[in-house]
Amino acid sequence: MRLRNIPEAEDIIETHPTYITTNGEEWQGKWQSRFPKEQPLHLEVGSGKGRFIIEMAKRYPEINFIGMELQTSAIFKLLEKQLEEELPNLQLLNGNAKEITDYFAPGEIDKLMLTFSDPWPKTKHAKRRFTHERFLTRFERILKEDGEFYFKTDNRNLFEFSLVSLNQYGMQFDEIVLDLHNSEQADENIMTEFEEKFSNKGERIHQLRARFK
Amino acid sequence: MRLRNIPEAEDIIETHPTYITTNGEEWQGKWQSRFPKEQPLHLEVGSGKGRFIIEMAKRYPEINFIGMELQTSAIFKLLEKQLEEELPNLQLLNGNAKEITDYFAPGEIDKLMLTFSDPWPKTKHAKRRFTHERFLTRFERILKEDGEFYFKTDNRNLFEFSLVSLNQYGMQFDEIVLDLHNSEQADENIMTEFEEKFSNKGERIHQLRARFK
Repeated sequence: MRLRNIPEAEDIIETHPTYITTNGEEWQGKWQSRFPKEQPLHLEVGSGKGRFIIEMAKRYPEINFIGMELQTSAIFKLLEKQLEEELPNLQLLNGNAKEITDYFAPGEIDKLMLTFSDPWPKTKHAKRRFTHERFLTRFERILKEDGEFYFKTDNRNLFEFSLVSLNQYGMQFDEIVLDLHNSEQADENIMTEFEEKFSNKGERIHQLRARFK
Repeated sequence: MRLRNIPEAEDIIETHPTYITTNGEEWQGKWQSRFPKEQPLHLEVGSGKGRFIIEMAKRYPEINFIGMELQTSAIFKLLEKQLEEELPNLQLLNGNAKEITDYFAPGEIDKLMLTFSDPWPKTKHAKRRFTHERFLTRFERILKEDGEFYFKTDNRNLFEFSLVSLNQYGMQFDEIVLDLHNSEQADENIMTEFEEKFSNKGERIHQLRARFK
């Protein structure tokens, strides 16, 4: 996602330590202490402007959510939403997926979600895709045993790549949906900003649920 | 596939033993002897009226093909095509996929192909789908080690089911294409009768290549 730079974003982020941290290492193994209640912990990697994670946190108050995003100007938008909503079960983390094992202890996360991740369409950039083995090894480490890996995207090539990558990594597929908006799963779906945009263009939304074995 | 019954089909099949057999058991482990040359052996399970296997055999004379089909009236149409073409590298088998391990010896087949298999849309009929574990165990047995499993279909639900079923069976995916006619692989594609029909209706064609590990 490309957003214009927001010069004051960093300052504003620093002044709201209750809802957001830029220092993931500090909370490794202690994320539950940032929430009022100890509940299952679901992490979205690459939350962007965060409509998905906000709506998830509203719909499922019995789950603690963390929205993680590298781009300061994107997570700033998400912080603005959270400052309006003040959802007790949502925490934000400004951080880099490459360092995710420094932010979370082994098995600390109950479910990991990727929605509309950057497809990095060029083959030479395949290693940057979140479903590349390079990231899967990290995700496997922080996910608890049998924890769910959830992924949705409009990008056909990224989904094709991901099916092969996850399979070859040895993950087990629990469910695959090739056209989410025309499926039994459509009712419970929460749309992201990207999803609404691409779906309106007639793109199909693909979704999968899998586990590390 | 539903075809009207052709009363003379059985008689005509019996009079062309050079090209077709109804007795697969008799040839178990000896299929190469039905071809003029010993070459890699590719089997299509459920050839229907056979346009795909006919075109494959024409395009790849260095491969021996077997088209297998249960329905007499469908394989009769395929036989008619072969009687016109007289392709030396194509043999037909009128037989039942459930009995496939009686027709072929372990490892006798180099590549197994399924194109536009019956989707059996009702959940209670899932066991009848060719990508159900019940058939995968049989296919694994007759395929040589590292032999390719090739599958294409227009049916979204069957493809979703198959991705999960093959993955859970422990197969390794080599390539997945979600929209064959709009892909790099489109040039080398051979259309089946079904494919042309469904593609003209705007359906996407899905394809996968996988191996038993």
